Parts: sequence; C-alpha cells; structure tokens
Amino acid sequence: MKIETLIAQIKEKKSFLCIGLDTDLNKIPKHLLKEEDPIFAFNKAIIDATHQFCVAYKPNIAFYEAYGLDGWKALERTMAYLNSEHPEIFTIADAKRGDIGNTSTRYAMAFFETLNFDSITIAPYMGKDSVEPFLAFEDKHTILLALTSNQGAFDFQTKKIEGKELYKEVLEISKTYANARNLMYVVGATKASFLREIREIVPEQFLLVPGVGAQGGSLQEVCKYGITQDIGLLVNSSRGILYASQESDFAERAAEKARALQQEMALELDKQR
Amino acid sequence: MKIETLIAQIKEKKSFLCIGLDTDLNKIPKHLLKEEDPIFAFNKAIIDATHQFCVAYKPNIAFYEAYGLDGWKALERTMAYLNSEHPEIFTIADAKRGDIGNTSTRYAMAFFETLNFDSITIAPYMGKDSVEPFLAFEDKHTILLALTSNQGAFDFQTKKIEGKELYKEVLEISKTYANARNLMYVVGATKASFLREIREIVPEQFLLVPGVGAQGGSLQEVCKYGITQDIGLLVNSSRGILYASQESDFAERAAEKARALQQEMALELDKQR
Repeated sequence: MKIETLIAQIKEKKSFLCIGLDTDLNKIPKHLLKEEDPIFAFNKAIIDATHQFCVAYKPNIAFYEAYGLDGWKALERTMAYLNSEHPEIFTIADAKRGDIGNTSTRYAMAFFETLNFDSITIAPYMGKDSVEPFLAFEDKHTILLALTSNQGAFDFQTKKIEGKELYKEVLEISKTYANARNLMYVVGATKASFLREIREIVPEQFLLVPGVGAQGGSLQEVCKYGITQDIGLLVNSSRGILYASQESDFAERAAEKARALQQEMALELDKQR
Repeated sequence: MKIETLIAQIKEKKSFLCIGLDTDLNKIPKHLLKEEDPIFAFNKAIIDATHQFCVAYKPNIAFYEAYGLDGWKALERTMAYLNSEHPEIFTIADAKRGDIGNTSTRYAMAFFETLNFDSITIAPYMGKDSVEPFLAFEDKHTILLALTSNQGAFDFQTKKIEGKELYKEVLEISKTYANARNLMYVVGATKASFLREIREIVPEQFLLVPGVGAQGGSLQEVCKYGITQDIGLLVNSSRGILYASQESDFAERAAEKARALQQEMALELDKQR
C-alpha cells in the first residue's frame, strides 16, 4: 500500500486506530470454540464489527504460531479475508523479525508476498543488512522497534551509546539505510513526552504507538507531541477491544470500544485543522 | 534436553558441529522437486547422511515461513523426524524472536512445545521481560544474540554503551535474568579474537558460533579463545554442507563435508585432554 492511501483513509475515517489481533483461544467467547476454525471465526467477527472505526489491523504472529499449523491456517485466512473484503485497510505483521541478509529476504517474502501484509515490525539489533532487505520491497513498510513500552526497554534502549540513547541512535542510523522512506517506527506511548525528541529526529515518519489505554498512555499526550501534518501516527489497541466481552455480544462490545477510541481521535484530528 | 546430555553427546561423537537447515527450493537437487514434500525429503536425506557427525540441527525458520503452510508442514515433519529418530540430537529454532512478556510466552509455546525444539535464538533489544518468558521453560535453552557475524553488527552491537560495547552489556545484564542458567549466546566467528573478552564475562555458557568456513572464520581460532572444560561451543555450518552438490550425490557429499569438519573438531577436542 502506498503511504498516501493510508493517509487518505485516516482523513476519511477520522481515525488512526490500529486494532491488534492477539487472538487467544483462552479468552475468546466459549461458543466460538465449536467452530471449525475458532481463531478465524473470532477475527472475522471482530473485523466485521470494527472495520469502519480503524485504519489498520495488526495480527500478533506469536499468537498464531503457538497453535502450529492450525494457527498458520487461521492467519492465512484472516489475511485473505482482509485483502479481499477490506483492501483499503493497512495490515501489519507484528513479527519483530530480524536476521542476516538472505534470511531477512525470506521473512520479507513470507510476510510481504506469501501473506500479502503491507508492513512488518522488525528488531534493529543486527543492523543495516538485516533491515535493508525488507526496505527493498516497494509499497511495503518496515516498522523498526525504537522505544518499546515494556519495562525491559530500560535494559538497553534508553542507555546512552556514545552520548545518545540507543533508541535515538537507531532512529538516526536507520535514516541512512537504502529506501529509508519505507521506514516507520514503534514508539511506546508510556513515554509520550519522549515523542517530542523523537520528532526532532524523524519529523515525518509514521509512528506505531502501542500502550495507549490499558497500559496507561494518554491519547492527548501522544497527539500533542507526535502528530504531524499527515498525522503520522497509528495508535494500537488490542485486548481492550478484543476482549471487551466474552459473551455472545463480544463483537458489538468491541465495536463500541473501537468507536469510542475513533471519536477521541476525531477530536484530536479536528484540532489539527 | 539437559545440558549434560548435550555435553555427553559432544564427547561421544567428538564433534560440536551444528548443521543449519536453511532449506531453499532453488538450491536443492532438481529431482527432489518431484516429491510431495521436497523440503522434508531434502532434510531427511541430509539428516540420514550427517547425523553421526553432528550434535545439533538448526532449522532457519525464515526458510520455512517463506513457503507458508507448506513450509510450516515441512518444519513440523522435520522436527517430528528428529524427535523420533534422533532424540539425542540438540535442536535449535533459529527464529531470532523477541517480544513483550505474554507474546514471548506464545513464541516459547510455539517452539518449545508445539514443535518441541530444545532451544531458540532470541534478539535482546526489548530486554529482560522479553527474554525471561523463554528462560522459564525447564531443560529448554535460550540462545541470545550477542555479537553477530554480519556487517550490520557494527551499527549498534560494537558501539559503546556507558563505556562498554553493547554486546558486552547484553552479556552482563542477561546474566542477572531469572533462570540465566538456561542462556546460551550467539557469537560470530568472524571476530574470533573477541571470544577471549567474551569468555571473561561468560566463562562457562555455551556459545553458538556461525560463520566458520564459507564466511571465513577459523575453527582453530574459535577453539583457542572459546573452548571450555565442557567444550561450551556449537559451531554451525549451513550452506557449505547442504549444497556441497546439487546432483543425486548431494547427501553423500554433504556427509563428506560434515565428516571433514567433525574430524577437525576431534583434533581440537584431543588438544583439551
């Protein structure tokens, strides 16, 4: 997907909501377990109920791989459904991959071609030749981990490397990679004030922001420091939407939660005019 | 697998060779493409021909995911074959995963339980709570990326973080994680002299060493600086063995290459007595 298509969708829907599909058989409504493919049945119901309020879906690949072949099948079906029914929606493989050149190319083929995702999350630890193979795909987007929202982010990411925090070094150096225009970044919302400094380094790139809501980040703060002329933000919510109810009204309740976030986002977008 | 079982196998076979199963349909002999599952057919032939010379197999997960459902099936069959025919052999999922707590637990389930690997490679960027969920599995091993053998390693890994190279900080900090006894580390052989300093930080932990042979590292150098009383090394070779021939004699030629490496290793092990 071209970035302009994503921006147009954000403006049309007045939403920059990404819904994380962290589908867990222990948390979905019990009645769905009777279905032949409960993971897909759940995802389809969530997509049908929420697609008008969001601009992106982000399957968390670990949740599919944990179920082996059945999980991989459900992921393929979910992507086929999104690609055929909602081709305008941006898709993110939350995979956090990263390996040397020819191996990264294989991961890129798996997610960009075999599954036809628009983007993938990537860990930066192995550097340039682990990231550039993803960047080489046209109209596909590589979302590099910069500052994550978990406690472990303080182990390495915020430590100073030659006088500058490692996550800032990741932002700076990745800007020099070939086809860097295809980069986006993961930035946790639990540190919204850091967004100001991040925007000094990457003033225009899209940021994927997890950790709003349940994990305590504030949407207003994220927008205050992170929004750009072309919005430049995708804010993710997973469990808060998916598991709003575990009864037969789960999809309806998920839609309410998604709609509430969309309306908050519309207010923020109106401030930009 | 208990670490003692791995050590006993190394001493019995006089080998610390790990064979990387980077199975690529473009590189395997053409006649195998007629098989119903060419990836598994190739892996089985390689395993049958080489298992007496090596102590570990390391499927590179990207190569399986790139083929979607067919790839995942071939991976499941390969692991079922190894687990039933060669339960004494150590298995490594070269997956380079790493995500926040509950997601890491899902990846651990996928590789340690669903596929029954003995170990997995993990990226350290997200810190403690992304690594500890893997360490919590008993008799399973987490192989953390420290210093990789690619050019991009110089982007971040060798830069100084508070006066010390990032990869050394990764070694130091990971030692404090819960169940750190289940840690091993990836250390590229292209920088064998670095092994001396690494051994000062992790004197006993197993090191998985890629990059010997084709990529130019020397086995003698690796042993000189890296070997311990319990050996503490797994040296990987992938393409040099798998693709020694692309004709009908591919398995035989792979066995010759594996045997040659095993014999070099036996000489090094004899030096230890």
